[in-house]
Amino acid sequence: MIRVAIIGASGYTGAESIRIILRHSEAELTYLTALPEECGAVQDVFGQFKGRCALQIEPLDLDKLAELADVALCCLPHKVSMGFVPKLLDAGLKVIDFSADYRIKDVAVYEKYYVKHTDTENLKHAAFGLPELFREQIKGAKLVANPGCYPTGASLAIAPLLKENLIETESVIVNAVTGTSGAGMNPSSKFHFPNMNENLFPYGIGNHRHMPEIEQIASDVAGKKVTVLFQPHVGPFDRGILSTVYCQPKKNLSNEELSKLYKDFYQDESFVQVCRDAPAVKDVVGTNYCHIFVTNVKGRIVCFSAIDNLVKGASGQAIQNMNIIFDLDEALGLK
Amino acid sequence: MIRVAIIGASGYTGAESIRIILRHSEAELTYLTALPEECGAVQDVFGQFKGRCALQIEPLDLDKLAELADVALCCLPHKVSMGFVPKLLDAGLKVIDFSADYRIKDVAVYEKYYVKHTDTENLKHAAFGLPELFREQIKGAKLVANPGCYPTGASLAIAPLLKENLIETESVIVNAVTGTSGAGMNPSSKFHFPNMNENLFPYGIGNHRHMPEIEQIASDVAGKKVTVLFQPHVGPFDRGILSTVYCQPKKNLSNEELSKLYKDFYQDESFVQVCRDAPAVKDVVGTNYCHIFVTNVKGRIVCFSAIDNLVKGASGQAIQNMNIIFDLDEALGLK
Amino acid sequence: MIRVAIIGASGYTGAESIRIILRHSEAELTYLTALPEECGAVQDVFGQFKGRCALQIEPLDLDKLAELADVALCCLPHKVSMGFVPKLLDAGLKVIDFSADYRIKDVAVYEKYYVKHTDTENLKHAAFGLPELFREQIKGAKLVANPGCYPTGASLAIAPLLKENLIETESVIVNAVTGTSGAGMNPSSKFHFPNMNENLFPYGIGNHRHMPEIEQIASDVAGKKVTVLFQPHVGPFDRGILSTVYCQPKKNLSNEELSKLYKDFYQDESFVQVCRDAPAVKDVVGTNYCHIFVTNVKGRIVCFSAIDNLVKGASGQAIQNMNIIFDLDEALGLK
Amino acid sequence: MIRVAIIGASGYTGAESIRIILRHSEAELTYLTALPEECGAVQDVFGQFKGRCALQIEPLDLDKLAELADVALCCLPHKVSMGFVPKLLDAGLKVIDFSADYRIKDVAVYEKYYVKHTDTENLKHAAFGLPELFREQIKGAKLVANPGCYPTGASLAIAPLLKENLIETESVIVNAVTGTSGAGMNPSSKFHFPNMNENLFPYGIGNHRHMPEIEQIASDVAGKKVTVLFQPHVGPFDRGILSTVYCQPKKNLSNEELSKLYKDFYQDESFVQVCRDAPAVKDVVGTNYCHIFVTNVKGRIVCFSAIDNLVKGASGQAIQNMNIIFDLDEALGLK
Repeated sequence: MIRVAIIGASGYTGAESIRIILRHSEAELTYLTALPEECGAVQDVFGQFKGRCALQIEPLDLDKLAELADVALCCLPHKVSMGFVPKLLDAGLKVIDFSADYRIKDVAVYEKYYVKHTDTENLKHAAFGLPELFREQIKGAKLVANPGCYPTGASLAIAPLLKENLIETESVIVNAVTGTSGAGMNPSSKFHFPNMNENLFPYGIGNHRHMPEIEQIASDVAGKKVTVLFQPHVGPFDRGILSTVYCQPKKNLSNEELSKLYKDFYQDESFVQVCRDAPAVKDVVGTNYCHIFVTNVKGRIVCFSAIDNLVKGASGQAIQNMNIIFDLDEALGLK
Repeated sequence: MIRVAIIGASGYTGAESIRIILRHSEAELTYLTALPEECGAVQDVFGQFKGRCALQIEPLDLDKLAELADVALCCLPHKVSMGFVPKLLDAGLKVIDFSADYRIKDVAVYEKYYVKHTDTENLKHAAFGLPELFREQIKGAKLVANPGCYPTGASLAIAPLLKENLIETESVIVNAVTGTSGAGMNPSSKFHFPNMNENLFPYGIGNHRHMPEIEQIASDVAGKKVTVLFQPHVGPFDRGILSTVYCQPKKNLSNEELSKLYKDFYQDESFVQVCRDAPAVKDVVGTNYCHIFVTNVKGRIVCFSAIDNLVKGASGQAIQNMNIIFDLDEALGLK
Repeated sequence: MIRVAIIGASGYTGAESIRIILRHSEAELTYLTALPEECGAVQDVFGQFKGRCALQIEPLDLDKLAELADVALCCLPHKVSMGFVPKLLDAGLKVIDFSADYRIKDVAVYEKYYVKHTDTENLKHAAFGLPELFREQIKGAKLVANPGCYPTGASLAIAPLLKENLIETESVIVNAVTGTSGAGMNPSSKFHFPNMNENLFPYGIGNHRHMPEIEQIASDVAGKKVTVLFQPHVGPFDRGILSTVYCQPKKNLSNEELSKLYKDFYQDESFVQVCRDAPAVKDVVGTNYCHIFVTNVKGRIVCFSAIDNLVKGASGQAIQNMNIIFDLDEALGLK
Repeated sequence: MIRVAIIGASGYTGAESIRIILRHSEAELTYLTALPEECGAVQDVFGQFKGRCALQIEPLDLDKLAELADVALCCLPHKVSMGFVPKLLDAGLKVIDFSADYRIKDVAVYEKYYVKHTDTENLKHAAFGLPELFREQIKGAKLVANPGCYPTGASLAIAPLLKENLIETESVIVNAVTGTSGAGMNPSSKFHFPNMNENLFPYGIGNHRHMPEIEQIASDVAGKKVTVLFQPHVGPFDRGILSTVYCQPKKNLSNEELSKLYKDFYQDESFVQVCRDAPAVKDVVGTNYCHIFVTNVKGRIVCFSAIDNLVKGASGQAIQNMNIIFDLDEALGLK
C-alpha cells in the first residue's frame, strides 16, 4: 500500500483527493495536514465525510510526515508551496504539487505572472503532470507539477492538431467556462450565492495566469512557439470546465480526418473520450474523464473539451500521476 | 411628489427599494446614504442600475436629510437602527424602519432575542407595518416598523383562522424555506456558492428571531396568546419564501369553508391572492404579492403562502406602508 | 462474484445502480434491460458512462436473464413491476424491486393509492428493504421491496422515538423537500428548467403515495397504528431529501436524552450518522448515508434527516439489501 | 393610448411582453390570442399574473383584432408567422414580428436555414428592428422584424468596429452562452431540470440559424460582406446572453481608442452602456439594457456584451420598436 499524505487538506482539492484515495485499492491516507486554524477531524471539517473517515487533519510535522508517508499531495497555493516542497523532497517523499510553482519552466514568465521564484533548482527537474502528453517524463519523477485545470482541458482539446502541425500557431483562441469550485473555499462577494447564482461573467481578461501555462504546453507539443488568447468565464454551477477552442487550419481538414486524427492520438488513453458530438459538462462531473469533440466550421476548426476541474483538473489527475510514479495501473481508484 | 431618502442604501433591501421607487409615479429618490466605505454612484455600487440612476450614495448628513426628504426608508440592521431613528423623527421625517427594533412591543422579549432596547419611547408609538392586518394603525403613523420577511408570509397564511378563532393556539407549526438573499450581502461560508448550490438546510433551530415576531402578530390577530413553533430552512435560489403552516382546527372545516373564509378575509386586498391550489415561489418573485392556498388534510389544516422576501417581505411592503402614510393608492409603484 | 441484472436500466435509478455496481468488488453487471426504444450501449444512453462501461441495454429475454444473473434489480414503475416480478422469481432470481408494488402489505391501502394488485401471493412474502429497521426479514429473502425515498428519510428520522413509545402517534407531521431527480427522466412542464429553476413548491397535498408507506413503517416500528401527515415539496436541486419531522412527546425529553436515544439506536449502523447539529443535503449527495439531528423545541421534538434520494433513497439501499441477501459485508460498494 | 394585441401570447416572449405593457403609460393590452388549447385567463396561464391582469387569451379572430388593436406583437414561430402577418397588415395593423420570417433579406439564405418563404412581398418592406443600428428604417415602418436574441447581443458588441472599418471581416468569432428561457416553454430532455442543472454545453455547431442573421447585420453595418463564426452554448440559468467576440484589428488600437470609439458610437443610446470592465449577465436580467466592454488582448480585440434574451433580445426590443413606430419616447415602459 502506498502511504499518502495530503499537505493542505482543508480545501476543495484536499477533500477531493481524500474522496478518491478512500476508494483506491493500493493507496491509503496516512497523514493530513493544514494550517492550525483549519485542523480537526476530517468529518468535522467536511460534512460529506461524516462516518466515512476517522482521520484527523493536523498541523504539519515534517518528521512525522517522513515517517508516515511515501508520497505527498501538496495542495498549497503558489508561493507557499515552493517553501515546503524542498523539505518534502529532502524528507524522501515523492511530491505531486498542485500549485503553479513547478509548472512554468521559464522563470521570467513565472515571475511575471506570479512572484519571485525561490526554488529554481527543483523546478528544473519537475515533471509536468499531464500524462496524456508527457507520460514519459512523469515515470520515475520525484516531483510532479500537477497542471492547472484550464490548461488540462484546453491542451487535451488541441494537442493532436499541434502535434501534427496542422494549425496556425499564432491564432489559437481558447474560450472557457468554469464552475465555481475553481475559486476555492474562501467566501467572496463574487461567489456569494445571491451574486453568482443566475449569473455568468468573464474574468482575468488578458492576464489570466493559466494563459502562459497553456502556451507552454502547446509549444512543447508543437515543438515551436504557440501563441494562445485565453479567455475564462465563470458560470453558476459547482464543477466542470467547458473549453471551446477556435483554430485556423493550415489546410482544409474534413470532419472524418479530424475524427480519425483524434481517435488515433488518444486511442490508448483511459481517460480521454473522443465523442461524436458536443460534450456536456454534466457528463464528466465527478469523473477523471475528458470528453472531446472536434469539427470543421466554415474552414476553421472548433474543438470542445469538458472536464471536472476538481478531478481531471486537479485531484484525479494528481492520483493518476501518483499511479504512474509508483508504476501502478494508471486508472486505479479513478474509474 | 414624495421625497424619499434611503438610509443604508448599499444592501439588497436598499437596492430593491431604489428599483421600486424609480418606477413610482408619486415618489422620487432624493437622498441615499450608507457607511462611508460603501458610498459611491448607485450605478457603481449596483451594476443593475448602470445608466438607470444618476444618484450618489453618500455618508449620512442629518441636516441635508431633513432638507431633502419627507420620508426615510431606514434599511439598517437592528441596534444600529434605533440609534438613528429618533434623530430622523426629530428631523421631521416619517420613518419606515426595516429592522426589528420597533417591531416587538414587549421589551423583555426584544431584549431576550436581540440586545438592550435604547428607544422604548418611540417603540410605544410605532405602527406594525403589515397593512393587510394592521392598516388602521399605519394610517397617520410617523414611525412604521416594517415586518420581517418570514412573519409576513407566515402571518398572512394563518390570519383568517386566528381572527375567527378556528384553530388551537398552542399547536401552530410554521415550516418555511427561504432563498438566499435573506442572508444579506456579506459573503460567508454558508452562502459561498460552492456550498449553498445544490444544498438545503435548516437553521435557527428553536431560536430564530422571527419566532417571537410571528407569535406577536398571531396573538394580536387572535386576541389571545398564540404559541408558534417556527422552523426556517434555506434553499438554493435567490428570492422567495414558501411557508407551510400546520394547524389543528377546533372543529372540522371543509375545503369549501376554508376557501370561503380566506376569500372573504382578503377580498379587498390588492396583494393577497387566495389560490385554488399550491403556490409556487417563482410566481411571486419580483412582485409584492402573497399567494395563499389552504386545505384540510386528515383533519388538520395546512396553509401555504409564497412571497418574495425582498418585496412583500421587505422593500415592497415598506413602499406599500409609505403609500398608506401619505394617503396614496396603496398599490402605487407596486403593480 | 454476484451476477447482477438491472431490469429497467434506462432511468435515473438504473444509472445510479450501474454507477455503484461498477465499483462493487463482489458484484458485476451481467445483463441490462429496458423497453426496446430505450436500448443501446450504456455509454450512449448515459453520457456519464462514456468509456467506463462496455455493456449494452437490451430488450428483456427471460431465458437469457435466468442464465446470466443471480439477482435482478427491478427498476420498473409500479404496476409494470408486478407483471414481471413473478417471472423473475420463477426464473430463480433473487429480486430487489424498486416499485411500490411489494411495499404496502395492506392490499386495500395499496389499491386505494395505486391500482388493483395482481400478485398478492408474492406480496405476502416480500421483505421490506429498510435494513436499519427490518434487517432480520431481509436476510434470506427472495424478494425485497426497496422502500420509497421519502419513507426512508422520514422513517429513519423518527424510528427511535416510535420504538421506545415516546411520542403521540396521532400527531406526527413530516415536511420534506426533495431534489428534482425524484421526478424521473420524462420531461414535463413542472420540471422544465425555466420553470423549476429558482422555484420551490409543494405537491401531492393530502394524497402523496408515500404517506401510507410512511405510516406502515412507523406503525410496524411502534407496534401500533401511527398516523402521519406527510407534505412533500420540490426544490431547485438535483439530489437529496431533507425531512423535517415534528412530533409531540409523551413526556418532556432533554436534548441529552434524545441524543443518547438516537446514538444508541443507530450505534451499529454503517450508514446512519446522528449529528450534533442540523444536517445539510449537500453533505449526503452521492452517498448512502443518512444524517440525522434531533432536538427539543418548546416542548416538541423536531427531527431532521438528509439522504440522497437516488442512493440511500433508491439504488444504494437496493445494493445494501443485495449485500444482506448474499451475506456480504452490508457496506460493500457503498463507502 | 396605443392598443396592443399579442398574437401567440402563451409563450415566454408573450408573457414578457404582457409584463412590460402592463407598466407602459401610453400603451394598453386589448387583445391576446393563442392556439385554442393554450387559451384561458392570463392569470391561469401564467401564475405570475395572478391578480395583476384580468385579460383572457383567446383564439384569434381577425375581425375582432382589427377592431380592437393598433399594433400586433406577433410572437409566433417562423413559418407560422408569415402565414398570419399578411392578414394582420391587411387588417390595418402595424406589426412587430418576433419570428425569423422577415429578418433575412436574402430569400435563398432564409430558405437554406428555415423553409420556403411564402411572403417575399412583405419581406422586402420589413424594417430590421435593431434601433441602435437601423433606427431610421424603423420610423414609419408598418412591419418590423424584431431581431433574434443572439444577433442583438453580438451585433451591438461589434458594430462600432465594423462601422469604422477597423477589423478584418473574415475572422469574427462570436462565442455566446445563453440562459434556458431561449429554448421556449416546451419541455424536452435537454432542458429537463435534472439534465440542464449543473450543466453547460454547446449546440447548433456550425449551423445555428442566427449565424446568417448576425452576418447580415454585420455586413449591413460594415457596408461589405462579413463572415462570422458563431458558436452558441447554453448554461444553467434562466435569462441572459453573454457574447464574447474575438476580432482581428486592421491596425493596433489602444484600450483608450477602443473605449472612446464605443462611447462615441453609443453616446445617444438609452439602452447601451459601455462599461469600464467585464459585464455580468445578472446586471442586465429583467432590463432592456446591453452592457458592453471592449479591450485589446495581445493584439486582438475582445468584445463582451450582456443582454436579457427575453427583454433586449425579444419583448423589450419589440416595445422599443413599437415606441419608435408610434413616435413615442423610445424608452417608455422600459426603464
